Amino acid sequence: MGSFHGETIRQRLPDARLAAVADPVPGAAERLGADRAYTDPEQVWADDDVDAVVIAAPARFHADLVVAAARAGKHVFCEKPMALTLADADRAIDACRAAGVVLQVGFNRRFAPDWAAARILLDTGQLGTPRLLRSLTRDPGGFDPARVAPGTIFLETLIHDFDTLRFLNPGAEPVEVFAVADALVEPEWRDRGLLDTAVVTIRFDNGAVGTAEACFEASYGYDVRGEVLGSGGMATMGDGRRTGLTFSYAAGRMIETARGDQELFAGAYTAELAAFVAAIRTGTPPPTTGEDARAALAIALAAAESVRTGRPVGVEGK
Amino acid sequence: MGSFHGETIRQRLPDARLAAVADPVPGAAERLGADRAYTDPEQVWADDDVDAVVIAAPARFHADLVVAAARAGKHVFCEKPMALTLADADRAIDACRAAGVVLQVGFNRRFAPDWAAARILLDTGQLGTPRLLRSLTRDPGGFDPARVAPGTIFLETLIHDFDTLRFLNPGAEPVEVFAVADALVEPEWRDRGLLDTAVVTIRFDNGAVGTAEACFEASYGYDVRGEVLGSGGMATMGDGRRTGLTFSYAAGRMIETARGDQELFAGAYTAELAAFVAAIRTGTPPPTTGEDARAALAIALAAAESVRTGRPVGVEGK
Amino acid sequence: MGSFHGETIRQRLPDARLAAVADPVPGAAERLGADRAYTDPEQVWADDDVDAVVIAAPARFHADLVVAAARAGKHVFCEKPMALTLADADRAIDACRAAGVVLQVGFNRRFAPDWAAARILLDTGQLGTPRLLRSLTRDPGGFDPARVAPGTIFLETLIHDFDTLRFLNPGAEPVEVFAVADALVEPEWRDRGLLDTAVVTIRFDNGAVGTAEACFEASYGYDVRGEVLGSGGMATMGDGRRTGLTFSYAAGRMIETARGDQELFAGAYTAELAAFVAAIRTGTPPPTTGEDARAALAIALAAAESVRTGRPVGVEGK
Amino acid sequence: MGSFHGETIRQRLPDARLAAVADPVPGAAERLGADRAYTDPEQVWADDDVDAVVIAAPARFHADLVVAAARAGKHVFCEKPMALTLADADRAIDACRAAGVVLQVGFNRRFAPDWAAARILLDTGQLGTPRLLRSLTRDPGGFDPARVAPGTIFLETLIHDFDTLRFLNPGAEPVEVFAVADALVEPEWRDRGLLDTAVVTIRFDNGAVGTAEACFEASYGYDVRGEVLGSGGMATMGDGRRTGLTFSYAAGRMIETARGDQELFAGAYTAELAAFVAAIRTGTPPPTTGEDARAALAIALAAAESVRTGRPVGVEGK
Repeated sequence: MGSFHGETIRQRLPDARLAAVADPVPGAAERLGADRAYTDPEQVWADDDVDAVVIAAPARFHADLVVAAARAGKHVFCEKPMALTLADADRAIDACRAAGVVLQVGFNRRFAPDWAAARILLDTGQLGTPRLLRSLTRDPGGFDPARVAPGTIFLETLIHDFDTLRFLNPGAEPVEVFAVADALVEPEWRDRGLLDTAVVTIRFDNGAVGTAEACFEASYGYDVRGEVLGSGGMATMGDGRRTGLTFSYAAGRMIETARGDQELFAGAYTAELAAFVAAIRTGTPPPTTGEDARAALAIALAAAESVRTGRPVGVEGK
Repeated sequence: MGSFHGETIRQRLPDARLAAVADPVPGAAERLGADRAYTDPEQVWADDDVDAVVIAAPARFHADLVVAAARAGKHVFCEKPMALTLADADRAIDACRAAGVVLQVGFNRRFAPDWAAARILLDTGQLGTPRLLRSLTRDPGGFDPARVAPGTIFLETLIHDFDTLRFLNPGAEPVEVFAVADALVEPEWRDRGLLDTAVVTIRFDNGAVGTAEACFEASYGYDVRGEVLGSGGMATMGDGRRTGLTFSYAAGRMIETARGDQELFAGAYTAELAAFVAAIRTGTPPPTTGEDARAALAIALAAAESVRTGRPVGVEGK
Repeated sequence: MGSFHGETIRQRLPDARLAAVADPVPGAAERLGADRAYTDPEQVWADDDVDAVVIAAPARFHADLVVAAARAGKHVFCEKPMALTLADADRAIDACRAAGVVLQVGFNRRFAPDWAAARILLDTGQLGTPRLLRSLTRDPGGFDPARVAPGTIFLETLIHDFDTLRFLNPGAEPVEVFAVADALVEPEWRDRGLLDTAVVTIRFDNGAVGTAEACFEASYGYDVRGEVLGSGGMATMGDGRRTGLTFSYAAGRMIETARGDQELFAGAYTAELAAFVAAIRTGTPPPTTGEDARAALAIALAAAESVRTGRPVGVEGK
Repeated sequence: MGSFHGETIRQRLPDARLAAVADPVPGAAERLGADRAYTDPEQVWADDDVDAVVIAAPARFHADLVVAAARAGKHVFCEKPMALTLADADRAIDACRAAGVVLQVGFNRRFAPDWAAARILLDTGQLGTPRLLRSLTRDPGGFDPARVAPGTIFLETLIHDFDTLRFLNPGAEPVEVFAVADALVEPEWRDRGLLDTAVVTIRFDNGAVGTAEACFEASYGYDVRGEVLGSGGMATMGDGRRTGLTFSYAAGRMIETARGDQELFAGAYTAELAAFVAAIRTGTPPPTTGEDARAALAIALAAAESVRTGRPVGVEGK
């Protein structure tokens, strides 16, 4: 993701400049074509020419990096998950508030056209009050178990869906979570406590019920969808098509499906960074905040505990 | 088509009874389960218990059968094409008028839900004034050249599309026709003057331009579609799906396509016969008339002449 | 439903005859055009000319009617739910087995083309092993609270989805159920213990997780859909379109949606009764059995208990 | 289009630099943020730091500008139509050949994902031999009659469709053209000889028949579609959706449609300029050539003559 964000900044954000990149791997920063290449984030903090940073490291380092960047007076865009504990999330939020810097979190799905349009339908009252919501993420597969921990499916994958469900139920907050999860793609993961398939039911304080669903393998490609049933109607998001072409032949009618995250969400990745730049320049609040990151994390932690206990778990509020 | 209509009457039209079937092939009529089985249409004309007949014979016999039925006082439903010359069409129309019997023609596409709904959009003004129209018919293939004549593609296939274009441009009449046709599916047909692929452009007296298109082979199944662009919007008809199932797998997303006429239009075949029964019982005009058959025939004859001459051809009015 | 089944038998099942109808409302049976009109089911049991019965009464009478019909030697088609307790379900199953009569249950969704085609994809291995399933039912609304009981959403609506999930996960059985439900359409129902919106998560013994979802109001019409994610791909069922027409105008592209159950499933209702007739005539097992009814009921009862207790509930096996 | 291309170069083509812009309107060039702002193209020809030019002027100046640029040794990307007469097209082609510079023409539709994917289906044999083709362009409307000439619909709008039909029938060339055109959107245009609606039938030397269709007003937005029926199957291109969102409500299911050319083809505009840069850097032939421009022009001229004469017109070959 770091490389991807770097290229986005360099090629698609005329109002930003890729001043510096820090990567512990020698040569990695140079390849991105930044003005200055570092191997240690401390060098970035000390670089007075850097106004804002994009943090995309292994998740366990995120919160400390946010705190350090804020103390150095840099505006912060942090990839999800911003933190792995609520205490860390609070530390990150507090540090940015104390430093007076912008803190935005990488919930890029909010910037995808389908999802943004659904939110407009909600904000204009056309969908009415949400009753049932659904958000799902299915990866094309090929996960490296060495990079998967027991909580990965909740903290790194479903965290997007948890944020999406909050985004699509504006003003409501989650009350209780029930999760079922298993290793169905790779049964041998089970002995190591790893999970690759999960369904999470979330009850919100306005009565609406959301379902978040993830699977680490979908033979047909990358599948991200959403659905809101409100009192006024239903919105569905995410058609998963790679192009608008259909090919009809002896077997039927075929539509190409998207194979990768960046194929479906390239525009959303650009839009979220453009929004970050705009928030810094104009002083307006960023569209996804540290509080959003904390709220999605609270759902993820409740889901993981629900799997451990086999029971519904209350969501810890602010 | 005769058998198909017979089964529809027997199984799906509670207000009609299959009193008799006449088929020159011994045993054929019996198999349909009619009350009486004949081998000669004269027997039908003489059967006082028969109120109305459905004519589905080789096209060259249609007009004479309509005239004979009318003279016997039977109401007539005739499969398309009702006649192969305008003079025969006039004879059929005149005979039915003189006898005071209902004459309805088998333009079943008008009764298909998509097409009927498009006409409602027109009649209620939602589509505005038609400007561009399209109607197409593609068969899955396997045509027997022994049953194909040089005019078949115009007189037996595109006749549906000609009627559809008139149906979707209510009140307007065709002025001029230009047709291009060839044997592209079966190049060896070319030497015998047979055609399997055609595109016909029709200019109407309200300025609208219609395109009718046919091909005797579509590898993906039976394909019938329509489109109207009016000043108020566009309607498209015919999605060609067999079911609402989609199957997404490694190759993409697959939708089953319909393979046969009766798969797509079974309901329309029932509806047109139900309308015929209703017209007889209530004395209201039938929804597709001998005049409609004549008007579509005039386009077909002009299209065939256009292919012969390589020029646009005026359409002979009433 | 009784009238609807009666009309189906009379108009669409050439291999069956509507010999008799029993309806306690005077005149109701006559209107259906049966050979004999009764007001008491006992008259049907005593009618030797009746081979088989279709039971469509208030659900609480179903089990007793099945038992009585079986004892009279009639083959039985019973609308869902066949029973409201597992003991009643067992009684009904046992009575039919003892009498040697066919017992089929009205899970018509299995006969709808999309769902039948999905099952073929499963049976031929194309979908692989199911991992995630979804089935939902949303009604257009207008429910009369006088006809709704606390368990209605599980026992009468979601019972279809519970059966569908079993149908789409062949050979697997449910292990545990967690349900969230509320009165979101009609908040005043809450005080009377009525529910109009529910999400049920079902864990199966092969690890697959199914989600069943219902809401008693969808502004856009009648919505029934299904989805199976298997190791080989995904099938989705139910596109909810009334016709294949699209209308594009100033506001965008509009597709008509189906407004009623019978609009979407008329063919399936005919197919299930045709299958019942075929099972009687050929001696082959019916495609939906009393055991299927019992298994779906066990899920419904567990779901209702889960709502009461706020906990996941084990499903009572055979 | 000049501004749009300028922004694309500056923001989306990291391998190119917007060295200079020439615009006769004072201040216009400055606004695009080029290194140097000119008011006369002569200044561009004289600028040794300029390697290549993008020409986007009123169409009647295109050919002369191409010739001048080529003589100055600049590689040339020219918007369509490259010329308004075949003689001018030949002059432009010859000048570029003599100067040894790249000449690419702005047929951007070839670079749109749907169309590029259809061509792959053709090149890999999956579509078989083309039999029937369709390409259409419908604008949302609001044309200024002051900027429309009698040939505009053929030379500036349908020129895209003519190129698309050649692109989708690789190796074949047009033989004969028949066109019907009228002023249906703005009937008062008729007296001034202006046309806003046209249907063009094109017969190719491999027997395939193409239909190109344009209308200057579509109430539902910008509509560009294509279709190829080949012996192996059918490809359809262009679904006209703005996003993947659907909104189902009381009136049915609504899909937002695209309202502008740049909304549908932004990626294609970037891709064609990226291909131009790549052709210059690598010395490989550009994907759309002066010869392609000439061939599409020959069809446009034949179509205009067909409207004048009311007859089919042969297409002038190379």
